[in-house]
Amino acid sequence: MSGSMASISPSTPWPQRSHSNINHHHSTLNLKSTTNFIVPSGRKNSKPFQSLIVNSAAESLNRTTGKATPTPPPLVVVGSANADIYVEIDRLPKEGETISAKTGQTLAGGKGANQAVCGGMLSYPTYFVGQVGKDAHGKLIMEALEGGGVLIDQLNTVAEVPTGHAVVMLQSDGQNSIIIVGGANMCGWPQNLANDDLEIVKNAGIVLLQREIPDSINIQVAKAARSAGVPVILDAGGMDSPIPDELLKHVDILSPNESELARLTGMQTESFKQISLAVAKCHKLGVKEVLVKLGARGSVLFTEGNEPIRQSIIEAEKVLDTTGAGDTFTAAYAVALVEGKSKVECLRFAAAAASLCVQVKGAIPNSELDKFSALKLNDKSFMEDGSSRRLELHEVHSGPNPISNSFTEEVPDINIQTAP
Amino acid sequence: MSGSMASISPSTPWPQRSHSNINHHHSTLNLKSTTNFIVPSGRKNSKPFQSLIVNSAAESLNRTTGKATPTPPPLVVVGSANADIYVEIDRLPKEGETISAKTGQTLAGGKGANQAVCGGMLSYPTYFVGQVGKDAHGKLIMEALEGGGVLIDQLNTVAEVPTGHAVVMLQSDGQNSIIIVGGANMCGWPQNLANDDLEIVKNAGIVLLQREIPDSINIQVAKAARSAGVPVILDAGGMDSPIPDELLKHVDILSPNESELARLTGMQTESFKQISLAVAKCHKLGVKEVLVKLGARGSVLFTEGNEPIRQSIIEAEKVLDTTGAGDTFTAAYAVALVEGKSKVECLRFAAAAASLCVQVKGAIPNSELDKFSALKLNDKSFMEDGSSRRLELHEVHSGPNPISNSFTEEVPDINIQTAP
Repeated sequence: MSGSMASISPSTPWPQRSHSNINHHHSTLNLKSTTNFIVPSGRKNSKPFQSLIVNSAAESLNRTTGKATPTPPPLVVVGSANADIYVEIDRLPKEGETISAKTGQTLAGGKGANQAVCGGMLSYPTYFVGQVGKDAHGKLIMEALEGGGVLIDQLNTVAEVPTGHAVVMLQSDGQNSIIIVGGANMCGWPQNLANDDLEIVKNAGIVLLQREIPDSINIQVAKAARSAGVPVILDAGGMDSPIPDELLKHVDILSPNESELARLTGMQTESFKQISLAVAKCHKLGVKEVLVKLGARGSVLFTEGNEPIRQSIIEAEKVLDTTGAGDTFTAAYAVALVEGKSKVECLRFAAAAASLCVQVKGAIPNSELDKFSALKLNDKSFMEDGSSRRLELHEVHSGPNPISNSFTEEVPDINIQTAP
Repeated sequence: MSGSMASISPSTPWPQRSHSNINHHHSTLNLKSTTNFIVPSGRKNSKPFQSLIVNSAAESLNRTTGKATPTPPPLVVVGSANADIYVEIDRLPKEGETISAKTGQTLAGGKGANQAVCGGMLSYPTYFVGQVGKDAHGKLIMEALEGGGVLIDQLNTVAEVPTGHAVVMLQSDGQNSIIIVGGANMCGWPQNLANDDLEIVKNAGIVLLQREIPDSINIQVAKAARSAGVPVILDAGGMDSPIPDELLKHVDILSPNESELARLTGMQTESFKQISLAVAKCHKLGVKEVLVKLGARGSVLFTEGNEPIRQSIIEAEKVLDTTGAGDTFTAAYAVALVEGKSKVECLRFAAAAASLCVQVKGAIPNSELDKFSALKLNDKSFMEDGSSRRLELHEVHSGPNPISNSFTEEVPDINIQTAP
């Protein structure tokens, strides 16, 4: 699989990753046309938008191999960036009470940033369009994004608004209580997105949205993408308000987990039958493809008029932290899709990425450990024996919004095309 | 009063403050002997301890006035540095519940850092000896300290431990619930303090401690200071465990508020009579001077064998935020003391600083507003009519540890020498 990863030339504006040596093992790439791919240079607002037109024929020289490598159209993630402040406590404090935590840790997160870093870690050219405040948490996020290889030219710093953050109170009994401060994720957006943001969107290979920023921004992005024929994936995680029709009708793939699907449709999603009926309702609302994440039960891709395709989870050697596994799944699916892989391959790739995600602590790994190098290295063996892997249950949730994965009924294999 | 502020020459390692023009109005300084004042240069651990001996005769040229100005022995604050994470909520979340905050803000704090920044803002050479983690909150604190003019050569960065932080949940009904993560304030200290830390302490003009770091560290610092004849002030704020005798006997001035005094002595501190009795107990434990902060009721300095000296609060034009007012009071008292002012003058100066503190948001002001420039400018008029000022009630508490200021009985003026 490492051979089918996008090879990024060092001469592109895409930053070199520490594992970039893997990029040299390039082979057949199945890239979407890169017509009119615009790479902005310089920081946002520093100058009128400067662009470098790279068309589908544009190729740059790989310094190591001397071979020309194409520049693929980027993954563009528009969404939230958060500082997730975890405190481990015996119990919640009462009103007026001061208690000591056992420990605490603050990590970069937010569904948008998580998904962008996944793209970056997969060595796929990835832009993040979002907002942070002018504060320490904003810097934390910028460093995490840059460290993950994400292009942050379109990351805006908003004055007078704090960076979005979440206080996650992990209690001894396993309960988590969470306080979310929307901050720059929800406030300070311009009424109309800047032209350079919209240009980046229109020239993307694929656009990835979630629901932790205002619907009005997502709608503008989805419309711009649709107008340019760029596919849009909407991860349903985030706000639990109904998705506006104007957003849904510009979305190509909706990706909820089963509880989000239940909330969005007002239907039960405990059995596969129920899920299928809820997905049918989504089809009626105009979404042709629904990628349902079922936690420990894997995932199912429903395409209107076709048989659903089911993907089991890939066993993780150890499960350290399931935070961000859902984000990793969606983002890896997007990367595989923009690389031109089949739906079956995309699902398998996303499951492999999620499996590796849960083996590392944090939604955005702060350590030097590059789990996606492992992904690439392990992938070939997975391709050979993936179908025979034993499945293990482990909760998959995303960031500070724990997602119930109660699946009270076995997913029947009848009428489902299972990934080989 | 501006005339009696320490004048710092630009040629010393002490950083220039934006309001340094005020320093040029220097006049008679009543400085403690600066014999063997050692100013370390370079970052901690970067090289074996380098020192520059500046003795009492050492003078450097003031570029503006052309006059030689002495370098005073520094204030050395050893203590805690915190990221205070404020979230404004309607009510506390229940177990397993996710709620949205109305807003949030993260500010540098911690009693040690607050007090050090007060010293820096008063343009007095101030070292901070403390620990932060290698994380975003550590950077926030470093920037706040440096921005406040504090020398952070002795600020240690500890791996594998988070920067101390506190989640302060401000509720609509006025209640605050607080979760404290000790982090680098409590963990990762060396068993024996580094020699350069102890050298800084021994060559200080005065040392300021609080109770948000391990007692063992405070004891080492207090012993080193005592061995070198350097006065030690212990702010009683922080942990509510009893103060070890070994610490108390090396402390020159203990500074509790009335609730801390009650906790430490196991006695009531509601009336002035009760406070006097509790202070007598402190004297018996070996502390000659007790500086009691009484919130809206002002402060009283008890010196064993002398009449107590009372200082009322100075009316603030507006009260924006009382956070850190107690820290400001203690630190300003320390600065005035090391500058050789009388006890009466020290109390008045501390009250004026606390009054200005409550007019600015945050324990460590992030804005460009330099409240201590105002202090210095206003001080002369205060000196003239301070005694006639009307007193207003406003709560004075310190950082995320709100201190009760219930004072159910009028402090009688009988037997108290009131500052003129």
